[in-house]
Amino acid sequence: MDGRLDDGAVRVGGDARQRYYDSSGYGRPLEGNEIELAPVEAAHLLFRGDLEAVDGMDFREFFAHATDAVDRFGVRYLVYADLRSRGFYLSPSRADWVPAPRRDDDFVVYERGQGPPDGDVAYRVRVVGERETVSAAAIAGARTDSADAALAVVDEESEITYLDLGAPDLDGSTSVDLPDRVPAAVLDDRVICWDPPISLYERGFFGRPLSGRDASEGDPLQLSLVEAAYLATHDAIDVEGDSATVRDRGRAVEGERFDRRLAAYTELRDRGVVPKTGFKFGADFRTYADVESVDSLGHSELLVRVLPAGHTFAPRDLALDVRLANGVRKTMVFALVGDDDSAGDGGVEWLSITRLTP
Amino acid sequence: MDGRLDDGAVRVGGDARQRYYDSSGYGRPLEGNEIELAPVEAAHLLFRGDLEAVDGMDFREFFAHATDAVDRFGVRYLVYADLRSRGFYLSPSRADWVPAPRRDDDFVVYERGQGPPDGDVAYRVRVVGERETVSAAAIAGARTDSADAALAVVDEESEITYLDLGAPDLDGSTSVDLPDRVPAAVLDDRVICWDPPISLYERGFFGRPLSGRDASEGDPLQLSLVEAAYLATHDAIDVEGDSATVRDRGRAVEGERFDRRLAAYTELRDRGVVPKTGFKFGADFRTYADVESVDSLGHSELLVRVLPAGHTFAPRDLALDVRLANGVRKTMVFALVGDDDSAGDGGVEWLSITRLTP
Repeated sequence: MDGRLDDGAVRVGGDARQRYYDSSGYGRPLEGNEIELAPVEAAHLLFRGDLEAVDGMDFREFFAHATDAVDRFGVRYLVYADLRSRGFYLSPSRADWVPAPRRDDDFVVYERGQGPPDGDVAYRVRVVGERETVSAAAIAGARTDSADAALAVVDEESEITYLDLGAPDLDGSTSVDLPDRVPAAVLDDRVICWDPPISLYERGFFGRPLSGRDASEGDPLQLSLVEAAYLATHDAIDVEGDSATVRDRGRAVEGERFDRRLAAYTELRDRGVVPKTGFKFGADFRTYADVESVDSLGHSELLVRVLPAGHTFAPRDLALDVRLANGVRKTMVFALVGDDDSAGDGGVEWLSITRLTP
Repeated sequence: MDGRLDDGAVRVGGDARQRYYDSSGYGRPLEGNEIELAPVEAAHLLFRGDLEAVDGMDFREFFAHATDAVDRFGVRYLVYADLRSRGFYLSPSRADWVPAPRRDDDFVVYERGQGPPDGDVAYRVRVVGERETVSAAAIAGARTDSADAALAVVDEESEITYLDLGAPDLDGSTSVDLPDRVPAAVLDDRVICWDPPISLYERGFFGRPLSGRDASEGDPLQLSLVEAAYLATHDAIDVEGDSATVRDRGRAVEGERFDRRLAAYTELRDRGVVPKTGFKFGADFRTYADVESVDSLGHSELLVRVLPAGHTFAPRDLALDVRLANGVRKTMVFALVGDDDSAGDGGVEWLSITRLTP
């Protein structure tokens, strides 16, 4: 069976509709038995030997032709072929192929055992090469849709990493009775309460006792600047010059990043989730949803990286974060903070990214 | 017992030599029984209640004073106290305290059970706060010394991460008989050999078959640009316009980073170590020291991140890389490539960083 190029797609006649579309979900039906194949579909049929030639080109010639003629053909073909080899039917996310295709998506993948035209959609997949970048806004936009959104990253050796784009669970049950204006001093880039109520640490999980984890009543408590800024804003600690002193120090040592981190920290605390430093995991925070006391602390559930809303991801950085979180059985979460969200007014956008094995 | 400030240190008389130096390794002896304490030592003795005051200041007052007066006092105190609490004796890396103190080091830590003046040195420790940066050159310089070098990173919540700075084992046993000028085509940002000898993949572990891992003779083989550049330089593949075509494409899509990666790739291959993409780990390469065939491949041993020699680390990025490598039981290695090393002439400096639990 041969196909012919027609305006960027490949037309096949004969019994193509039964042979390719009805039985295997390739292409879209035209008049009669003719179908139209997207270039990746045609290339896959050529590779399998199910199609002999397109305008006289064999697989190798067509592949080279399409690499030149079609935007990102190589990486899209690799993902198409990989998902096919895993037993999925998928359609290019193009007008006429699928209803309401979404900008930025490359494929619509059907639930296993289903296909076009009316199969249930399992994932809408966007393909990127590892050298491309992906805007945080695009990822955040993609995952708001009803169908699950996924990113397929093709690395330089043509291996594929699939990432699921979702929304994290940020419901916590931690409640803390904050103390009233406990004296505290800003020392360099941390804050010390010399004689705090022990509950501030033991129940609220604020700070770290200067004596280490086994603290007793009256032990000095060190607070990070972001913890101290939160507590000062809530009049729980009292520093010379009020909460602005702490925020100014935070900005002095971290710049605008401090405001973004404070916005994310505040929203998490407001939701009953306790953020602590994620430094050992290379993140901004690790979080505990249900803290009753530090003595009965479970494992932290999320790793949070705080980013400006306009951030652009390098896929390799995403792979690093998600792989690490996966290895320590936590969920990787990105907090996207806009320029006007520094007051922690709930304007933080939350995005979870997890590894997907189709 | 009281001490007095004297030119940035604290002098203590009475039976101080026996009490603090001989029995516990604090300070350095002066005339008679008098000793001199560094500020972190004095603060630690004040905190423990073994010293009552310094110029009338108790622990809290002295701590605040020293934070203002002494560079990086807070983070250095935290590390000093932490290592003391783990049972180590350590001395400030200062002239008169230890022989031949090294610039950039903060403490000399003795082997467990030993101390000044003639204890064996276990680690020379440099302290950094998580918001400081550390130059790759300084790390590379530190680890060439005879004693083991370590970095102690104090995070915003005053938790400490210890990192061991070393040199990786780069001895591999992989030997490959390269083929002679196999035809290959540059397609976008990868290279394809349409009809390669299967040994190029199966024995040399170059590329990835277009059909996936179960390749048979004659299956097209995709090569990454860095693999192709290496093979073209060794006349193992033949691309139109020779090896410069591949390198030019590499530079077009990755910039100077491509030359650095090629230098590291080449040195690894020359040492019998096989580098493959480290993308899934967020690194440049993962490596296999002893490849006999892809069918009997073991786990990769190293994760390699390639950096310009002038790179400056943010401690958080270091923590991320080292933690990830540790979690997948690999060693994190940094390849530092200077501007004039793009020819892969062996000028790459290799640095391993591992987590240390003192």
